[in-house]
Amino acid sequence: MTWSNGDGDAIQLGHGGGGRLSQQLIRELLLPALGTSDGVLHDAALLPAQPGRLAFTTDSYVVRPLIFPGGDIGRLAVLGSINDLAMAGAIPVALSLGLILEEGLPIATLNTVVASIQRAAVECGVAVVTGDTKVVERGKGDGLFINTSAVGRVDHNLCIHPPAVMAGDAVLVSGDLGRHGVAILAARDHLGFRTTLRSDLASLLPPVQALLAAGLELHCLRDLTRGGLASAIDEIATSAGWAIELQEPAIPVGAEVSGACQLLGLDPLAMANEGRMVVVLPQSQAEEALTLLRQVESSAAQIGTVLTAASPNNPWPVQLRSELGVLRPLDLGQGEQLPRIC
Amino acid sequence: MTWSNGDGDAIQLGHGGGGRLSQQLIRELLLPALGTSDGVLHDAALLPAQPGRLAFTTDSYVVRPLIFPGGDIGRLAVLGSINDLAMAGAIPVALSLGLILEEGLPIATLNTVVASIQRAAVECGVAVVTGDTKVVERGKGDGLFINTSAVGRVDHNLCIHPPAVMAGDAVLVSGDLGRHGVAILAARDHLGFRTTLRSDLASLLPPVQALLAAGLELHCLRDLTRGGLASAIDEIATSAGWAIELQEPAIPVGAEVSGACQLLGLDPLAMANEGRMVVVLPQSQAEEALTLLRQVESSAAQIGTVLTAASPNNPWPVQLRSELGVLRPLDLGQGEQLPRIC
Repeated sequence: MTWSNGDGDAIQLGHGGGGRLSQQLIRELLLPALGTSDGVLHDAALLPAQPGRLAFTTDSYVVRPLIFPGGDIGRLAVLGSINDLAMAGAIPVALSLGLILEEGLPIATLNTVVASIQRAAVECGVAVVTGDTKVVERGKGDGLFINTSAVGRVDHNLCIHPPAVMAGDAVLVSGDLGRHGVAILAARDHLGFRTTLRSDLASLLPPVQALLAAGLELHCLRDLTRGGLASAIDEIATSAGWAIELQEPAIPVGAEVSGACQLLGLDPLAMANEGRMVVVLPQSQAEEALTLLRQVESSAAQIGTVLTAASPNNPWPVQLRSELGVLRPLDLGQGEQLPRIC
Repeated sequence: MTWSNGDGDAIQLGHGGGGRLSQQLIRELLLPALGTSDGVLHDAALLPAQPGRLAFTTDSYVVRPLIFPGGDIGRLAVLGSINDLAMAGAIPVALSLGLILEEGLPIATLNTVVASIQRAAVECGVAVVTGDTKVVERGKGDGLFINTSAVGRVDHNLCIHPPAVMAGDAVLVSGDLGRHGVAILAARDHLGFRTTLRSDLASLLPPVQALLAAGLELHCLRDLTRGGLASAIDEIATSAGWAIELQEPAIPVGAEVSGACQLLGLDPLAMANEGRMVVVLPQSQAEEALTLLRQVESSAAQIGTVLTAASPNNPWPVQLRSELGVLRPLDLGQGEQLPRIC
């Protein structure tokens, strides 16, 4: 069986059984594709000693379809977890890869996704050092689910998390919103609309490193994945115990995303992104931060301000001020509008 | 919706959508059950600085049924990854938890599994510090899949891996084989046989720490999960470049496992275990190691010896010597005999 000419070749249950087929899958497809072809298989990978604090994160990826405009589940699985490290201001040290394959998955699809994983890992300066493959029966999975976990090192002394947020802070976004969600929806044929939009899927390491290198006092970073800006801002406000007011006209949403959301009755602020983040930092540093963010994405913008804590008179953690100056609470939504967006 | 009285309550797609239902699941069920109820959600967890090398491992768990004699998928998911750390002689520092839930999974089942995860984590002296939950549509998953990844610290200076194996080394197992596999098979009703056997699921941290504390020169450790002893020994021999001879009568297999395997036409040496390991170390230290291992499991035994490298005259990496002295190659199997054993 040659892994490379995958016509008709498909994953069998035995590829997950721990016997000869499992070893063949690991030795002939996974290890060479991931650049770890020394042929030595370890239960646990050893990492060199790291100075300072560590960051650790995990995410599973069940996106549908597996390949979409601007990316695929493999690239998403690497950048998604690396972006979670970036939200702690951490530099990636090592990545793990857990695959859950459905019986019948074409080997050619697996080859494509694993090659994409490797390219994304190289781009982020990290290696897949440990992994695992399971196979479930036909009809008990959906082609391919991926888990990645990542270890990073923290070279700064900041505490970048909601409790560090202060009244008066500026709230920025690193670019226009909603392109990942719309690209995924468009790729689901049955939705019956077409767009030239591609996912915003991208590594957030470069902009975060630029902000840290400039010595900016980052209070909170949050990448805008499932649930979009709405979910992230609500979490930050609720965790931090402050209220946040967003200026609706300042929130960057492209015309194509805006149009698609109107067509489908969806809220662009709740649409998923995979290469966008919120940055909360002192208002006095907002301009410098925006200049740095715009070197990566010209649409980066300040979209709001942290106010004092929510009060009985104003019980909403996040409010939106419209173009006409009217305030309304942010609608978090029940969250079921977009299943399996990541 | 009260998480605790789960009658009729079930996972909905919206629990994975990143909105209000997702936050409710995390804040009201997962965080309290995992003892991390400070209400602060981070993209990445921060870990204190660790001296020395780190170990890092990942595994996904798709075992069927979710609850089986001697354990459940939650306990398996914690001990499985902690045992992978133990195979590097590492002490656990942090655990991640990735859940892939199928729409319709009873909340009561999730509660049971998450409580089991927390008990197992406490038993191993580790905490779940970061996690992720995804939901897939009914018929696109199978109730519950779990990924755990673990970070450990390495306090010793040994290189415990196949390249350290030497000709003349003793090959030990830490206890009787095959109980996990037989317990899982018996729990699958349609197989039509009953047994009182329980899975051997257990933490391997205590026996490994005992071996390290005694200053023994461990060359290789390998836990015997999928594929059982056969797969592990084949991997060690192949990776190390030596041949290994096993003494068949010395391999501890209980009467119930042996009987079930005969009934089902399965090889006990290829049956899965979840609390057993192979230990390879100098023959001169084998007795001391066995004394320590037998304080945990009285059935621990020396089962073989590392020979010189496989040669053209003897091309099999692993051979079994029968009671009558006849040598035959170890049959690794294609590996499909037992799908979804872990």
